[in-house]
Amino acid sequence: MTLTGQHWIAGRWCGAPQTDFLAWDPRADAPLAPAFAEASEQEVAQAVAAAETAFVAYRQTPAETRARLLEAIAEGIESLGEALITRAEQETALPRARLEGERGRTCGQLRAFATWLRAPLQAVLKDAALPDRQPLPRPDLRLGQVPLGPVAVFGASNFPLAFSVAGGDTASALAAGCPVVVKGHPAHPGTAELVAGAIGRAIEACGLPPGLFALLQGRTPALSLALVRHPGIAAVGFTGSAAVGQSLAREAASRPRPIPFFGELGAVNPQLLLPGRLAEQPEALAQAQLDSMMMGQGQFCTSPGLVLLPQTEGAERYLAHLSEGLKSQSDGVMLTPGIAKAYRRQVERLASQTGVTLLARGQGQGQGQEQGHPNGAVPRLYRVHRDDALDNPVLFEEVFGPCVLVIQDGLDDALVDALPGQLTVSVHGNEADFAHQASLLERLAYRAGRLIANQMPTGVEVCAAQNHGGPWPASTAPQTTSVGAQAMQRFLRPVAYQNWPQHQLPAALK
Amino acid sequence: MTLTGQHWIAGRWCGAPQTDFLAWDPRADAPLAPAFAEASEQEVAQAVAAAETAFVAYRQTPAETRARLLEAIAEGIESLGEALITRAEQETALPRARLEGERGRTCGQLRAFATWLRAPLQAVLKDAALPDRQPLPRPDLRLGQVPLGPVAVFGASNFPLAFSVAGGDTASALAAGCPVVVKGHPAHPGTAELVAGAIGRAIEACGLPPGLFALLQGRTPALSLALVRHPGIAAVGFTGSAAVGQSLAREAASRPRPIPFFGELGAVNPQLLLPGRLAEQPEALAQAQLDSMMMGQGQFCTSPGLVLLPQTEGAERYLAHLSEGLKSQSDGVMLTPGIAKAYRRQVERLASQTGVTLLARGQGQGQGQEQGHPNGAVPRLYRVHRDDALDNPVLFEEVFGPCVLVIQDGLDDALVDALPGQLTVSVHGNEADFAHQASLLERLAYRAGRLIANQMPTGVEVCAAQNHGGPWPASTAPQTTSVGAQAMQRFLRPVAYQNWPQHQLPAALK
Repeated sequence: MTLTGQHWIAGRWCGAPQTDFLAWDPRADAPLAPAFAEASEQEVAQAVAAAETAFVAYRQTPAETRARLLEAIAEGIESLGEALITRAEQETALPRARLEGERGRTCGQLRAFATWLRAPLQAVLKDAALPDRQPLPRPDLRLGQVPLGPVAVFGASNFPLAFSVAGGDTASALAAGCPVVVKGHPAHPGTAELVAGAIGRAIEACGLPPGLFALLQGRTPALSLALVRHPGIAAVGFTGSAAVGQSLAREAASRPRPIPFFGELGAVNPQLLLPGRLAEQPEALAQAQLDSMMMGQGQFCTSPGLVLLPQTEGAERYLAHLSEGLKSQSDGVMLTPGIAKAYRRQVERLASQTGVTLLARGQGQGQGQEQGHPNGAVPRLYRVHRDDALDNPVLFEEVFGPCVLVIQDGLDDALVDALPGQLTVSVHGNEADFAHQASLLERLAYRAGRLIANQMPTGVEVCAAQNHGGPWPASTAPQTTSVGAQAMQRFLRPVAYQNWPQHQLPAALK
Repeated sequence: MTLTGQHWIAGRWCGAPQTDFLAWDPRADAPLAPAFAEASEQEVAQAVAAAETAFVAYRQTPAETRARLLEAIAEGIESLGEALITRAEQETALPRARLEGERGRTCGQLRAFATWLRAPLQAVLKDAALPDRQPLPRPDLRLGQVPLGPVAVFGASNFPLAFSVAGGDTASALAAGCPVVVKGHPAHPGTAELVAGAIGRAIEACGLPPGLFALLQGRTPALSLALVRHPGIAAVGFTGSAAVGQSLAREAASRPRPIPFFGELGAVNPQLLLPGRLAEQPEALAQAQLDSMMMGQGQFCTSPGLVLLPQTEGAERYLAHLSEGLKSQSDGVMLTPGIAKAYRRQVERLASQTGVTLLARGQGQGQGQEQGHPNGAVPRLYRVHRDDALDNPVLFEEVFGPCVLVIQDGLDDALVDALPGQLTVSVHGNEADFAHQASLLERLAYRAGRLIANQMPTGVEVCAAQNHGGPWPASTAPQTTSVGAQAMQRFLRPVAYQNWPQHQLPAALK
């Protein structure tokens, strides 16, 4: 498959590739052909104008039409075959098996939204007219929903398929009835182009307006700003770093017409080890921690980066097993040179905090200074006592990569209350543990979007009851989820129909 | 009943009344005893600290406890009897019958939330575990909700009971499990104090923590800012002017931890008159417009201030009847001297726009210059042709009071698309009208939060399927409603429970 290096706007490839914007192979540490274009403000305007035009027709399509589009996109992605996996592997250094699994999840997610469109999960609210009520009659009222309008989607580096061009944000926005303008992540522009082509062909095959979807390639903050500021954009879906997400969220809120910014910004996903379970199986707990934090070199937004460890039986065995296991881990190649560099900076910052000590480091050719793969990240295990952790928010900041901090004597209410908002919190305990820790457990719901018992947070199920979000700063919109059936709600707005003629009501309200 | 003039914080009256802050009787145009206190930053901090403490206990109460509290508040308000109505009448110049009706609505609203707590309207989403699923098992997932935390509520001037101290925002926040800190509206501090006392006694009678509710009296922007900026405040409910609401919304979004700002800011609530119905009954349509716009001297957020009139049969009879009817209306006394003054300023601005002509004015002792009641507002009917309206957004700005602008030849898609976001739009048509105007009607859902057929917008039913909100700038949070069962959702956040022990699950998820 030949890549154009261009944007997909209003049903065609356009834009002039720039010789200095190429994808990068992090394993070879070398550029990948071809060159890609950088979208201009004018191209943003073209994409949004086409999306606004497409919106008028698309918002009137029945749920079945949208369901078929989502299925056609899934089929189109699958029919890209090996070419997609090969390019994604080159651009991200993620293993083929992981990418194949992610493709399955991406297509499964598109099909899940098709299912939810055909069989909505929640009943429609209706109040029948009460013409004889005193002192005043009650009118007939039915609560419907309409889509917001064109949605800007910012692809994430760490899920080049499932949270990128045809990922959860795009799938849920299209399901809701909104056109989508994607800003492709510059770390995988070729993967983005391949998927965009599949979406474009699916839209054409379904006879839907070509402006329904656009892919804009680019690397500059100016492009991100132009997209968030464009008056035609009605909402933003974002997965990425806290710094960029918070900055763009403030832009969205300070527009002449503010718009919702659905940003999922990551977390340290604390693991609480309760004394009973810790005494019973410290090695199994340590192994589960190790396996989870090493998935994708710790580059998951649900990667477990913090352990709250009581000073009780099993604690030393847990630390010993985790240390031993970590020492044998190699310095895997990260998604981009920038992410590898940021990881080194972040672990240095963590290591320099008062009371923080290094317990173990993984394989890497150097000692102290990294001299292994230029884009590699050496796994790290740090320890700190709760007294040094309570008042130091730096310890709760995400280190994006295979790093974990264990807080010793860390199981108390004050420490839980000091945690910033999290995507997930896991609690590992036996029945007696859960019964004894009622106060601690009750507090956890106010710190995270998902509470997990005796399982690791990595692997986010795409289902009806999922919530992937959490209190700020885990999410810029803590009342919403970016994964699961409810993700569609982000792009809808309620409308009450009062006394409205039966034949003019939306299908769902009749 | 003696008024203290103080704040209600953590279960007691406190604060020193200031001799220059008194309520004002707009009919007598004279101050009302006693003097009231102005809350300091320290008092804001005390109220929020008490709310944060109360939150930990209150969030753990079962739905039945919250339902009983809401009912006890309703009973407490009713038992204030004539004293409440008398004080509210003095402070607002609203007629007794209207205030009695509003008290009924306020108490009905509190009891409605109690009903919805006992019998939730929407099913809980659950995904059962699939332990044998390949390639990976599915965990048990259940989607619950937790309250956000202390909510700041800004009372509205125009609903001294139903959207003030114990109004819709307070009722829905308490139902959701959130403590409430009310900033009382300075136009009715005595009414606010009486209702606050009823809430305080209800909280005590129910054995709930005293910090669950606070009333802060005051007039300064500094108080509003201190409340919105306080780190302990988790959300804001606001009903009021566009200028103040938009300014506070930006404050909420630019805090170190941004919080949701649920602001309902008003609208012109367009009335679309379709040709068939207009030809059939122009006088009845004009009478309905007149009755609705004169309710509460046009001081309703759903007051119909704009008519889109086609130049077809009946148009002249409609205008003639509306003009005649309006001329006989008197210059009613407005809620406050400031609102009366703003009305005069706003109608002058409207009258000065290109192409706008005065068709009729109501009774008032003066001609041209108002020389009637100092706080009165003379009703006004203006006309403009669509060609002068299309590009002049000033014509779509709310005039708060008994004023209506008729846009002649005003029934076309471009004009509908030019409307800013509205709380409501009404369409008056017969069956054939609705069938012929499919394109126009489809567009309306993207301009308003409630679509009404053949009824006026005033009188917002408090029910399950209601939506009181709308696209920006009608609301700062267009995906939410401030009236009806769904208003509670504003103060809740989703939490997914994964594999969570049965006996530790919230009651609703078991």
